[in-house]
Amino acid sequence: MCSKRLGRSSAVIERRAGVLASASVVGAKEGEGPLARSFDRIAAEPYFGEKSWEKAESAMLRQCFALACEKARTAPGELDFVLAGDLLNQCAGSSWALRECGAPFFGIYGACSTMAESLLLAALLIDGGAGEKVAALTSSHFCSAERQFRFPVEYGSLRAPSSQWTVTGAGAFILARGVPGPAITRVTAGRIVDMGVTDAANMGAAMAPAAADTLAAHFEDTGRGPDYYDAVITGDLGITGGKILRELLSMQGIEPGARLADCGALIYGPGQGVNSGGSGCGCSASVMAGYVMDMLRSGAWRRVLFAGTGALMSSITCSQGESICGICHAVSIETEAQ
Amino acid sequence: MCSKRLGRSSAVIERRAGVLASASVVGAKEGEGPLARSFDRIAAEPYFGEKSWEKAESAMLRQCFALACEKARTAPGELDFVLAGDLLNQCAGSSWALRECGAPFFGIYGACSTMAESLLLAALLIDGGAGEKVAALTSSHFCSAERQFRFPVEYGSLRAPSSQWTVTGAGAFILARGVPGPAITRVTAGRIVDMGVTDAANMGAAMAPAAADTLAAHFEDTGRGPDYYDAVITGDLGITGGKILRELLSMQGIEPGARLADCGALIYGPGQGVNSGGSGCGCSASVMAGYVMDMLRSGAWRRVLFAGTGALMSSITCSQGESICGICHAVSIETEAQ
Repeated sequence: MCSKRLGRSSAVIERRAGVLASASVVGAKEGEGPLARSFDRIAAEPYFGEKSWEKAESAMLRQCFALACEKARTAPGELDFVLAGDLLNQCAGSSWALRECGAPFFGIYGACSTMAESLLLAALLIDGGAGEKVAALTSSHFCSAERQFRFPVEYGSLRAPSSQWTVTGAGAFILARGVPGPAITRVTAGRIVDMGVTDAANMGAAMAPAAADTLAAHFEDTGRGPDYYDAVITGDLGITGGKILRELLSMQGIEPGARLADCGALIYGPGQGVNSGGSGCGCSASVMAGYVMDMLRSGAWRRVLFAGTGALMSSITCSQGESICGICHAVSIETEAQ
Repeated sequence: MCSKRLGRSSAVIERRAGVLASASVVGAKEGEGPLARSFDRIAAEPYFGEKSWEKAESAMLRQCFALACEKARTAPGELDFVLAGDLLNQCAGSSWALRECGAPFFGIYGACSTMAESLLLAALLIDGGAGEKVAALTSSHFCSAERQFRFPVEYGSLRAPSSQWTVTGAGAFILARGVPGPAITRVTAGRIVDMGVTDAANMGAAMAPAAADTLAAHFEDTGRGPDYYDAVITGDLGITGGKILRELLSMQGIEPGARLADCGALIYGPGQGVNSGGSGCGCSASVMAGYVMDMLRSGAWRRVLFAGTGALMSSITCSQGESICGICHAVSIETEAQ
């Protein structure tokens, strides 16, 4: 009973990779948005008690991880593996946050697809037999991201209408073999898709083709259509990218209708001045660990497809005129038996 | 028949995750060292035909990947998964190099442990049933690393005796289920170890405790001693870090003797002015894909333990006074049946 390959890029998770616990911690702005009630903790101040934005991000992720472990009644050192990564250069936020955790650690880099990539790999590690209890987590912080990718916030630079607002947030999942409740049942790994978009203020456009590619592969590989799912959640294309995805899917005859939603479009309200919505590893991480898991746990949804998207770019790639590569990894989370 | 967990942090690879092919591409300086004959290709010029150091690194990795695919008689798009990462911010070298490969892609970040981390995960993905043919690859380039982590080379800054020289090199493995010859048989995943070292010019010292931790875990988990192996190869502690590792192991009663060697100490000769030896993801990648695989294929060695070490740091973490976290992942590569 190992994982079973399915089509071009999917696999069936044969053993239950159940969600033992999930936790989310966000910043004040996210705490003023429509999903406020779904987050475990809303920060009182953006520094999280630290003296730099990078350390603040790391402290937020550490809090979130501790909370998930607490809910799972599991000491960090008892975890078989921990998978994490973030947007900071050399994924420094994750290394800092987890240096005392004592569990085997895999650093991953999937840009804003990190929550999906880490969940996907965690499910495969559990299903493959190498571990029974595996954590997947990630974070982003508005101020550390702005300073690294754009300008320090103090400069007050203008933002394009298509630009997205990096979420200050962290999400953590602890998956375990055989636990009841929502579980990962199918995974579809994405390939890099580069459609030549070079506008770093329109990452939704750069990532939408990757989302379309992975969703089409998922539906083909698994034989399921979008109507199999109660919700198909991308993260984080934002409003602009979400519209592009809908058009790209429609061109392939895929019409997900109202069940298609995006973490970047869900997390902020219309009056919050975020232009095209949220982005950053912490966006889909906190929305999935909070809102989406709430919907699954309450029974409002029973089958969710989470397609996490990432823009594989850096300041260097942009300044050297390179286009922005997109990637998207998908996991099905289902409450009922397979 | 899935992977079987073994002790704190190891697993038995039950199905053969065999090395279908490996390839290495290095720069001119590495091509003048003692391992010159083991590399597949030595670059004529450091830019690899590109106009920036980052693009040069990416071109080198692309060449190396193409060569490995050619040797494996496998089109890149036929691979079930590709795992890669590098030292550049946001792992840009790997994304650039692989954006046209067409296979499902997982970005990973393990600093100089990336070759070991990617081989470990690739073996588990094969053993777990999710894929049959998986690539693991990484690279580093002296000039892109110097400019990002220290100073542009044109500044001609002085180097500490304990500092290591970032290898210009790439290594790629293609693993496949059930193929004969050398195969990955055991894996031990490392945890983050932080002993408070803050000297970025002495990364060997920062990584040696992680290497000692993972090697001790491997020997305990598997019940094997160092004498089980023909060679125990760390990468890349360099000369300074290698000595520290030997002391740390000795304190735990582990005496690997002459079979313990380090990729960073092997790749350059004494007259090459590299102080404490080589480092960078491409160091252990090119030495493993070249020299070590040659020794295994020729039958000179039958059992090798590869322990890849990484320093999880960035310019930001150093400038903010944080200590350098180390990590080490280990894989056994064996020719005989398990």
